[in-house]
Amino acid sequence: MSEQRDILNALAEVLEQRRQADPESSYVARLHHKGLDAILKKVGEEATEAVVAAKGGDRSQVIYETADLWFHSLIMLSACGAGPDDVLAELERRFGLSGIDEKAARKGQ
Amino acid sequence: MSEQRDILNALAEVLEQRRQADPESSYVARLHHKGLDAILKKVGEEATEAVVAAKGGDRSQVIYETADLWFHSLIMLSACGAGPDDVLAELERRFGLSGIDEKAARKGQ
Amino acid sequence: MSEQRDILNALAEVLEQRRQADPESSYVARLHHKGLDAILKKVGEEATEAVVAAKGGDRSQVIYETADLWFHSLIMLSACGAGPDDVLAELERRFGLSGIDEKAARKGQ
Amino acid sequence: MSEQRDILNALAEVLEQRRQADPESSYVARLHHKGLDAILKKVGEEATEAVVAAKGGDRSQVIYETADLWFHSLIMLSACGAGPDDVLAELERRFGLSGIDEKAARKGQ
Repeated sequence: MSEQRDILNALAEVLEQRRQADPESSYVARLHHKGLDAILKKVGEEATEAVVAAKGGDRSQVIYETADLWFHSLIMLSACGAGPDDVLAELERRFGLSGIDEKAARKGQ
Repeated sequence: MSEQRDILNALAEVLEQRRQADPESSYVARLHHKGLDAILKKVGEEATEAVVAAKGGDRSQVIYETADLWFHSLIMLSACGAGPDDVLAELERRFGLSGIDEKAARKGQ
Repeated sequence: MSEQRDILNALAEVLEQRRQADPESSYVARLHHKGLDAILKKVGEEATEAVVAAKGGDRSQVIYETADLWFHSLIMLSACGAGPDDVLAELERRFGLSGIDEKAARKGQ
Repeated sequence: MSEQRDILNALAEVLEQRRQADPESSYVARLHHKGLDAILKKVGEEATEAVVAAKGGDRSQVIYETADLWFHSLIMLSACGAGPDDVLAELERRFGLSGIDEKAARKGQ
């Protein structure tokens, strides 16, 4: 697999491109065209689907639905002028992950 | 910022370590100790908080709450025997991001 | 307006009838046919829509979306072999509303 | 059990009274004091708990959590200047329940 950074940033880039596309042909453009409320409704729906999958004990379904949740989170972030790096920087700041990261990197050597 | 891969994997590693910690001293251990339902409740709660922040138009609050949502998604994944790489591999597969990634990488040169 | 009891019970009765209907012609039959996960997804979606409407400060939209939420709650209850009276009995028990009710009834005289 | 109308209206009345109470002593006052976002977060949380209970197949837990969901819906409605009768009138209008109600009442004779 590519680096996670590449994946989330590549996906965010795809989402920005599709946002400008024809709502007739692009799901992402259609969601933005419908407006913020439609995007937020999808975030709530996908969170519920992930929770239901987890409660059902189906590992692959949890992965699938969490992908849907993160995907729609990225659309929500985009609608708010933010992106995955903002969220990851917040997690990094909060958990002091730079340090941990270095330690993990050293362990991996 | 470190690579996103490092951040999410480092965070997942922290979450696995804390899962084994004393529930008295660790929020993550406490959540796992309470059980899956408590974890899922937090996912639903944090999704709602992210949605409310987005509707309120507060960019930095959206970032903060999405970080909370992804953090608790990782705990949910961990409880189901999965991790961030599983979700990112699903997104990569779904959107054919490897190819896009290479194209983006070439553009970045 | 009719008594609330009549409204919720009449609605629950309608929902039981439609549950047996042709999924092609009835939304409720279609939801049950899709299964519990589809019903639960709708509960999560409608809760999010109500929350978004409330955050948006649109009173009539909040009423509309809460109606959707309660409607889908009733379908969820029906799928679990329960009905509105079970929920109201729980609220009555929890808040000792019989007594309060009598007091309110006396005040209303 | 008392009439549903009495129960929901009595509960709405209790909620209005407690809204004015000391946040130190009343959960409802405390929620209103924290503000709309805190109320909405609870609605999302309780919706998730109801969904998890339903997925878990525990009938009495579904009833308990749906009571929590409706309870917090009423607080949300109150914060938006609405009440249970507004929601029930919307459901009645939407499903033409007055007529059905009469038919049901006739059947019950």
